[in-house]
Amino acid sequence: MNTRQGLFQIMERKKSCLCVGLDPDPDRIPESCGSGVLGMENFCNTIVRATSDVAVAYKPNLAFFEQYGEAGWAALKRVIAAMPDDVLVIADAKRGDIGNTAKRYAKAMFEDLNAHAITVAPYMGKDSVKPFMDGYEDRWAIVLALTSNSGAEDFEFHGTPPLFERVIEKCQTWGNPDQLMFVVGATRPEMLAKIRRLAPEYTFLVPGVGAQGGSLEEVMSAGWTEFGGLLINASRSILYAGSGPDFADRAAAEARSLQAKMEPYFNEFVRP
Amino acid sequence: MNTRQGLFQIMERKKSCLCVGLDPDPDRIPESCGSGVLGMENFCNTIVRATSDVAVAYKPNLAFFEQYGEAGWAALKRVIAAMPDDVLVIADAKRGDIGNTAKRYAKAMFEDLNAHAITVAPYMGKDSVKPFMDGYEDRWAIVLALTSNSGAEDFEFHGTPPLFERVIEKCQTWGNPDQLMFVVGATRPEMLAKIRRLAPEYTFLVPGVGAQGGSLEEVMSAGWTEFGGLLINASRSILYAGSGPDFADRAAAEARSLQAKMEPYFNEFVRP
Repeated sequence: MNTRQGLFQIMERKKSCLCVGLDPDPDRIPESCGSGVLGMENFCNTIVRATSDVAVAYKPNLAFFEQYGEAGWAALKRVIAAMPDDVLVIADAKRGDIGNTAKRYAKAMFEDLNAHAITVAPYMGKDSVKPFMDGYEDRWAIVLALTSNSGAEDFEFHGTPPLFERVIEKCQTWGNPDQLMFVVGATRPEMLAKIRRLAPEYTFLVPGVGAQGGSLEEVMSAGWTEFGGLLINASRSILYAGSGPDFADRAAAEARSLQAKMEPYFNEFVRP
Repeated sequence: MNTRQGLFQIMERKKSCLCVGLDPDPDRIPESCGSGVLGMENFCNTIVRATSDVAVAYKPNLAFFEQYGEAGWAALKRVIAAMPDDVLVIADAKRGDIGNTAKRYAKAMFEDLNAHAITVAPYMGKDSVKPFMDGYEDRWAIVLALTSNSGAEDFEFHGTPPLFERVIEKCQTWGNPDQLMFVVGATRPEMLAKIRRLAPEYTFLVPGVGAQGGSLEEVMSAGWTEFGGLLINASRSILYAGSGPDFADRAAAEARSLQAKMEPYFNEFVRP
């Protein structure tokens, strides 16, 4: 779990590189889970239980918990504690601040929440990224490079080379493939192929498949490597596959359907 | 407080544009405050009481609270609730995520913590910034432009024009001077003068004076306008002015000494 190789072993066992994003929207949580923070917690725990045979990672989105204040934070901690051992837990927090502050965020994510990884916004540069790796050799910093949202056009393509390429090149000088990953959106597969060439040894966390319209097959073709190298995230398409009492079964079916599309790629590479 | 004009009225009354950053470092909190979360809360409350005659804003840094998990979050909420009415409360959270997530962060900061403003990381573009303004017309989004840390060199200067200029130009098309501010570091005063020309109507939150070495006089000369337009932040130089039982007096003295340097600028402009 704490190295690229360890992560790939879990992928190989499950024949999956599926990451399930936990973005529990209060307006869409099935009534059968209950309401408020407790409803959110029940919902997340049920989704995890229903999908962990095919998911190698879970990515709780901190905003959805923070909106409930300290009660939401405590619930998130319990949701993480209840996860099985064979999944990577990614705190989708997109933190980014100067060195002495980034150190505190690292403590919050890795020690208080006990996540294995955190998403990091690179805007402020080296001293905002390094503290998530220094002293946390068994954890991961996952740096935003090219995101899947429409606003990505505003700044991520700025300059020559575009900013996201600069981020990918620069960050590789600060970390290594056992501590650092990149966020690369699924909505621009031609870019993903290019970024794979820029960072052949690194794992990419790929949002944007499913509700946002990215194609799983295109992502696999563009980014898959002999060591895996992809964590493909789906959130809404799994979480809200159903809205009735059978929501867990529907979520499980959707997760399995994504895993089934991943499985053939595990047979294409022969491990040394 | 919720318009540029309202903020300037408070500045004029206090003859100050001082923002006190609350970065309560567990290793530096005076023993007389107690320890752990309660010590941190006592420390912050004491600093606020000691400085609020000359401070127009407080900027609690969320990382220092989050490192204590839900107990830290609850303490931050109490610290904010205990602040006087005539100060702007800035949640220094540097959040930045896609639209449906940014909305939840806005709810967390503006509704759960009841902050007036939040610092926002612009990397992901428009849909990561706008939700802090849409539906929150009485609150502020404070977007990172040029920060005061060494890592600012890595990406903020990327491209032509440099990324931070692009951020300042683009964000102005999404907001107005009553809802949007920019973070512009004190450590590069020549840049601050240039940015003032790019955004003549906007208020800048300026970190980097004090412990980080920026000069207050240079910042005032470069950025001050007839409507104020600056919130100058000092954190460590005030918080840790003393470490003994007299720390509050030492903090008050340091805050007053900064305010005294600001006061002359309030006499230079005649209000219409």
